[in-house]
Amino acid sequence: MRLELAYITQRRQGLKSGPAQALTEEYLKRTSRYAPMQATAYDSETALLAAVEKAGGRAPASMILLDSRGQALSSEAFAARLRQFRDTGTQMLFLAIGPADGWSPIAWARANLRFSLGAITLPHELAIAVLAEQIYRAQTILASHPYHGGHA
Amino acid sequence: MRLELAYITQRRQGLKSGPAQALTEEYLKRTSRYAPMQATAYDSETALLAAVEKAGGRAPASMILLDSRGQALSSEAFAARLRQFRDTGTQMLFLAIGPADGWSPIAWARANLRFSLGAITLPHELAIAVLAEQIYRAQTILASHPYHGGHA
Repeated sequence: MRLELAYITQRRQGLKSGPAQALTEEYLKRTSRYAPMQATAYDSETALLAAVEKAGGRAPASMILLDSRGQALSSEAFAARLRQFRDTGTQMLFLAIGPADGWSPIAWARANLRFSLGAITLPHELAIAVLAEQIYRAQTILASHPYHGGHA
Repeated sequence: MRLELAYITQRRQGLKSGPAQALTEEYLKRTSRYAPMQATAYDSETALLAAVEKAGGRAPASMILLDSRGQALSSEAFAARLRQFRDTGTQMLFLAIGPADGWSPIAWARANLRFSLGAITLPHELAIAVLAEQIYRAQTILASHPYHGGHA
């Protein structure tokens, strides 16, 4: 199963360079030891949804939306959901962080899962880094790598 | 009201240098525009609790513990609690991130508030950066600075 960390931004250059972006890069690199992984900036929700539709081959692509109204899963439960996608034929999984004004009802309805990182509000770049870390953590949980237990 | 971001670590040098630590430094610097703020590493919970007791002057110091069993406050509610501490005579407020194996019942009982960043597990250095950002965000909320509304 291929993974894409997708985010919506008005900035043409994608992520602001800085420590949050460096963290994201680090977790993307680590995740790629377990699964093909990329990060992609979209300039609108419409562009993202078009990419999700286009990515579907024999099976439609799956999409997880990050949203404060979503399920506040533990890292273990999040990993279990990724395994479930993988084991039920998903070839391509999008994990998407929305625009500042939230997801439209169309994106909300298209999502296969809505996931909340918590009740707090985070800046966009930091939320992306936290999601990248959770994706990496999930891979280590599924591979029984000691990262998760070790709080490393 | 003075603020201290306190964390327990076995490492003598304190925070691992890297992007998470750079993020923490950035938010500490920004917070200091609003309130005197420092970050301190303790090598044990006992050392932290001794510092909390010692910091009390006319009024005892207050302490917020970060704990997954704590209240999952929104950023706005967290800011309101900081204001409450400030406005009811707290001179010194500790915001403490625990050891990997969690807080003892003694620390739990001493805490004035237990705050959960969410259901997910984060690495120690990233949890510290997220807490530093929430403390900064709280100051901007209390000062009606546009940071919080602007998702900047």
